[in-house]
Amino acid sequence: MNFKAINFKQKYSLFNDYWSPKVVAEMNDYQFKLAKIKGDFQWHCHNETDETFVVLEGNLTIKFREGHVDLKEGEMYVVPKGLEHKPCAENEAKILLIEPRGVVNTGDLEASELTSENDVWI
Amino acid sequence: MNFKAINFKQKYSLFNDYWSPKVVAEMNDYQFKLAKIKGDFQWHCHNETDETFVVLEGNLTIKFREGHVDLKEGEMYVVPKGLEHKPCAENEAKILLIEPRGVVNTGDLEASELTSENDVWI
Repeated sequence: MNFKAINFKQKYSLFNDYWSPKVVAEMNDYQFKLAKIKGDFQWHCHNETDETFVVLEGNLTIKFREGHVDLKEGEMYVVPKGLEHKPCAENEAKILLIEPRGVVNTGDLEASELTSENDVWI
Repeated sequence: MNFKAINFKQKYSLFNDYWSPKVVAEMNDYQFKLAKIKGDFQWHCHNETDETFVVLEGNLTIKFREGHVDLKEGEMYVVPKGLEHKPCAENEAKILLIEPRGVVNTGDLEASELTSENDVWI
């Protein structure tokens, strides 16, 4: 057994690339992923699953075709499955993503330069 | 659609009872629950699922039969399914629990005074 806490700040010190979620823990078949983000991501959706965003530092806006939600530190939002969304952060923000193992960050789009490798643990 | 962020501090202002998790969001068949805790909980385990603890304020110790993990603000830990554990907090702490809908807080024990009603949304 590993009786060691997962410390978000320590984990964030291990990488600097944006929009490239790193897995820090698994719960059943779900993963907890940390990401640093800055700028605009792509419009995309996940047809198989909801996706949870928790903001740990900074500000995140999630745009939808019919609205948006602004999130700051200490706030979370669950994007329903199948709903097109576009995460954006004017300045660097640090977020925690929770979603099933195997979810691709660019959803059902063709792979692009923003598509991250999956299952990268730190 | 509800384009409103879930703000942990605002949600915590809505209740004061200890060891009584309140649901603030669902992702697929998983729930996000906030709890205020203080003192010792019971030894228990969940035979069907892992259970995630995230500390948002204060300090949490999770005791196991063969060790323990100390968590502070900005740290998380996933208790594997079937592993006996006993959460403790010397002073009031605020935590976020993530687990499948329907999990009883006292696990596979007989209901006790610490057993909370499930699916209490705030």
